[in-house]
Amino acid sequence: MPGMQAILEDIHSELQELEDRGKVATYIPELAKIDNRKFAIAVATISGEVFAVGDASEPFSIQSISKVFTLTLALGKLGNALWRRVGREPSGNAFNSIVQLEYEKGIPRNPFINAGAIVLSDVILAGHQPGEAIAEILRFIRSLGDDPSISIDPAVAKSETDTGFRNVALANFMRAFGNLDHPVDMTLGVYFHQCAIAMSCRQLALAGLFLANGGVNPLSNSRIISSERARRIKSLMLTCGHYDGSGDFAFRVGLPGKSGVAGGILAIVPGIASIAVWSPGLNANGNSLIGTLALERLAQGAAWNVFGV
Amino acid sequence: MPGMQAILEDIHSELQELEDRGKVATYIPELAKIDNRKFAIAVATISGEVFAVGDASEPFSIQSISKVFTLTLALGKLGNALWRRVGREPSGNAFNSIVQLEYEKGIPRNPFINAGAIVLSDVILAGHQPGEAIAEILRFIRSLGDDPSISIDPAVAKSETDTGFRNVALANFMRAFGNLDHPVDMTLGVYFHQCAIAMSCRQLALAGLFLANGGVNPLSNSRIISSERARRIKSLMLTCGHYDGSGDFAFRVGLPGKSGVAGGILAIVPGIASIAVWSPGLNANGNSLIGTLALERLAQGAAWNVFGV
Amino acid sequence: MPGMQAILEDIHSELQELEDRGKVATYIPELAKIDNRKFAIAVATISGEVFAVGDASEPFSIQSISKVFTLTLALGKLGNALWRRVGREPSGNAFNSIVQLEYEKGIPRNPFINAGAIVLSDVILAGHQPGEAIAEILRFIRSLGDDPSISIDPAVAKSETDTGFRNVALANFMRAFGNLDHPVDMTLGVYFHQCAIAMSCRQLALAGLFLANGGVNPLSNSRIISSERARRIKSLMLTCGHYDGSGDFAFRVGLPGKSGVAGGILAIVPGIASIAVWSPGLNANGNSLIGTLALERLAQGAAWNVFGV
Amino acid sequence: MPGMQAILEDIHSELQELEDRGKVATYIPELAKIDNRKFAIAVATISGEVFAVGDASEPFSIQSISKVFTLTLALGKLGNALWRRVGREPSGNAFNSIVQLEYEKGIPRNPFINAGAIVLSDVILAGHQPGEAIAEILRFIRSLGDDPSISIDPAVAKSETDTGFRNVALANFMRAFGNLDHPVDMTLGVYFHQCAIAMSCRQLALAGLFLANGGVNPLSNSRIISSERARRIKSLMLTCGHYDGSGDFAFRVGLPGKSGVAGGILAIVPGIASIAVWSPGLNANGNSLIGTLALERLAQGAAWNVFGV
Repeated sequence: MPGMQAILEDIHSELQELEDRGKVATYIPELAKIDNRKFAIAVATISGEVFAVGDASEPFSIQSISKVFTLTLALGKLGNALWRRVGREPSGNAFNSIVQLEYEKGIPRNPFINAGAIVLSDVILAGHQPGEAIAEILRFIRSLGDDPSISIDPAVAKSETDTGFRNVALANFMRAFGNLDHPVDMTLGVYFHQCAIAMSCRQLALAGLFLANGGVNPLSNSRIISSERARRIKSLMLTCGHYDGSGDFAFRVGLPGKSGVAGGILAIVPGIASIAVWSPGLNANGNSLIGTLALERLAQGAAWNVFGV
Repeated sequence: MPGMQAILEDIHSELQELEDRGKVATYIPELAKIDNRKFAIAVATISGEVFAVGDASEPFSIQSISKVFTLTLALGKLGNALWRRVGREPSGNAFNSIVQLEYEKGIPRNPFINAGAIVLSDVILAGHQPGEAIAEILRFIRSLGDDPSISIDPAVAKSETDTGFRNVALANFMRAFGNLDHPVDMTLGVYFHQCAIAMSCRQLALAGLFLANGGVNPLSNSRIISSERARRIKSLMLTCGHYDGSGDFAFRVGLPGKSGVAGGILAIVPGIASIAVWSPGLNANGNSLIGTLALERLAQGAAWNVFGV
Repeated sequence: MPGMQAILEDIHSELQELEDRGKVATYIPELAKIDNRKFAIAVATISGEVFAVGDASEPFSIQSISKVFTLTLALGKLGNALWRRVGREPSGNAFNSIVQLEYEKGIPRNPFINAGAIVLSDVILAGHQPGEAIAEILRFIRSLGDDPSISIDPAVAKSETDTGFRNVALANFMRAFGNLDHPVDMTLGVYFHQCAIAMSCRQLALAGLFLANGGVNPLSNSRIISSERARRIKSLMLTCGHYDGSGDFAFRVGLPGKSGVAGGILAIVPGIASIAVWSPGLNANGNSLIGTLALERLAQGAAWNVFGV
Repeated sequence: MPGMQAILEDIHSELQELEDRGKVATYIPELAKIDNRKFAIAVATISGEVFAVGDASEPFSIQSISKVFTLTLALGKLGNALWRRVGREPSGNAFNSIVQLEYEKGIPRNPFINAGAIVLSDVILAGHQPGEAIAEILRFIRSLGDDPSISIDPAVAKSETDTGFRNVALANFMRAFGNLDHPVDMTLGVYFHQCAIAMSCRQLALAGLFLANGGVNPLSNSRIISSERARRIKSLMLTCGHYDGSGDFAFRVGLPGKSGVAGGILAIVPGIASIAVWSPGLNANGNSLIGTLALERLAQGAAWNVFGV
């Protein structure tokens, strides 16, 4: 992909200058320690190339980006029956809002808000101990990211567990409506650990490639999911992947993406590439400020946009 | 486009059999009179072909589909300053909800819910009398649809005016927050008339072609808007075009679309085609039941999906 | 009532010193012109005495206090059937919120929020022209206040009509749900004029006496309503009379009361007296700041509290 | 109090006939077992008389009525500083709604909805182990009810603990906002046990007497709280004591009252008496259907109403 490395370097050097880098999330104490000047972009193409700039080999906490992978696993287990327990609509609310859950009787609006992802964890937990479910998620991501060293940051996992009162509230609220099958502690054990998985942009870009490639991992040439399911996951990323900033992300970037509160974003260019960016500071909607800007420029520079050129 | 006519005929004959056709909207009395067995599909390609089945030459009330065209006009007048008066996020609410307007101080969530479209009418009205603004909208749509006979159904316009109390409420509520520049009666005069424009599926498919073709009307080869703006309108159609069923439409159909309460839907296949369907019965979210099914099958049959094949 | 005049004078001289007098309402331009140093208290006893301090003979706009009188009239017309169109619960929202109306399908929570009072106007309007309905309300209040010169301030009425977009929204919203019987303009004509009635504290205290005296006007010895209905109106004043500050008013003052946005409050001491206070500056809930303080001290000084001594 | 026993017997025999007795609460499984034909009324006067009919000596689960006693204790500990952690306004929502907590950042609207009462438990817990706090509450109620045998129903306490997911959600949600000082499990341990206190109508009527008697327990002649505080607790009972049916209760009964989900209601006649009723079936707002009717008739028959006679 000629010119890609130059595009990335231009974007990196330009955006690294910006003073306003957003605010690092503080509600998980361990995440608040991260240096707000970190910045990385990695692009993996379905033909096997990887382009990267900045801190692209340094692991960071993927947080909610993990929901793309657990959605893939949960759909593999439950199939379309999953949609009886989780909706497919943008929420019109913050990522950790509980209001919608009360009005809609314990059914989260989509799998990418916290409540929805807790249901995914509950689905993956079926027939397992929490440790086994966590191991399954990790194994899946290691295989996609082509690196057996990908692991969970125990300090982040502990920090989430110690301070995740709103998630405990969400889970108990859904339990009250009968939408969790396991004890809340077990389900949240899985959820908090998946959020604490640490990956570099390189690893993350590789891990997303199956979504760019019709459900087939181009590295191993193994089918992960059907092409229809890959399309549908991407549609959910586009409509719901950035919480209450999803419309804005689609408007500006034009690609399916999923953000995490530690400043990572995974974006997919159907048929072409998988992109991971990382910059810890967040905008008002809880999405990476510089990361979104970087994706906006990259999409423009490479003429990547699902809505046409 | 070989095979397209056969695909349309298959879909038409299969879906015309279905017993459950949804419910015709009754809140505008004039619309309640429509025969629920009406059904049409038209596909216009950027290379100039048109394929059609069913009642594809019979005009119907385009209702909220008109918002795609008034958004195009309003962006032409105000440019990005429009986004100070209207948001770009899915609403998480019904099309005529006023709740969000109170919480967000008179700024509608997006241009495709009623409140947002009323702001578009207010923008187009600037410097005009209502009759001139309506004429401008009609002229624009006639030119896009390549038919000077496209017109407003006066019975529908009157019915909307007589019964549109919720829209009057929305407009006054925004006026209270200073988000309308003109007297409510004038702004709503424009709004009610644009909703009452009647078009056939053939005309509507042609009228949407500029969005499929990077902002250029392929019939006249004239540029309507920049390709970037065309992409952005399509992103809004995908995330917000079906009210609180937008996520579901993106999931099932995978194309940007905009529905109207009389049972029409306009969908865009970037770089390829513009599609119009019509079947009056609606699903629970107020979108055409059979029309959505038809688009789902057509998108699958033609392998059209912005999220890849 | 020995000592009462001294109590009033103490309260007046002490509170007239206070710097923080709240904010005069500005959303009705005509009300914004009032001098924030105005301050009056009047106490009328059922035995015929009247005590007063400050600007107690100066008329001010009674605004929402008029709802007590229109509730009395509307109950006289419809009886308990009124409660099919208006609820009896505190709203938990601001006085002009429209959110609850959407969730509860056009039935206002109680007769003292704006939406509820608009329904009262609609009830009084039945069988009348707006001018006649306004005349009936005025006649009733003149008779209660024992002064045929009580009248409507035309500048305030015009100001309300010109700027009352939220009330127009509320009325149209209820019309959409079928909860108004007359054209919105006519119903609001009555509503805006009743809000613009101007009374002095002396007149207002007299006008409230029938509620203190078991439904009988002690001046004329004529029964206005049954004693049961008088109790019930007072219960609504206590639970709903101060919008989203009703609980606080009951906690601090312990008397049924109804506030108006121009800074007046009418409070009732069952079996004993009717009190009117006026100070234009409002607290965060839209109730008179100094007026509430004055009532708190007066109730304490006179040992008046429906919850016991 | 001549005639009181006859009034009670009339009410009892008449209401015991009614077919529609409301629905016994089922969300706490242990409560669902109660016989819906149970019915009792007890009236304790400040002069020392007790009148009773029906199952007035049979203990039932007082549930939320306990909040009146824990509010008294918590005010004794924190004084008015309590109002920084709990509001004093009717909620406009169901007893276990979490919506308001999100909008108002973890501050419950009043001490009588579940979230507010959990804060009270947290206040009482300060400096104690949960067992000690529970013992303190029980000691207080035994002393007020003049019966050392009053105790906690362990089966109900266990049932609440096992199924109280919504309360766990509420508590964690408030913890996330920093409005709980203790671990959620400890605070809820206190809360669930206080709700499981079992009392008869006789005991409950005695226990409420201090509120009828200006804060002084007339049995022991000991002051429990100041008369001002007693008035204020009664004002909260009137405005907030019946959840989203408080306005209706004030309208129909006209006395401060607090209901429990097991069908009990405590009502206070200031200066005269304390009333306890019990009938397990609930109305749509979660308050005893027959119990409310009984209080309505009793208040009418005895001419007891804080809004006058």
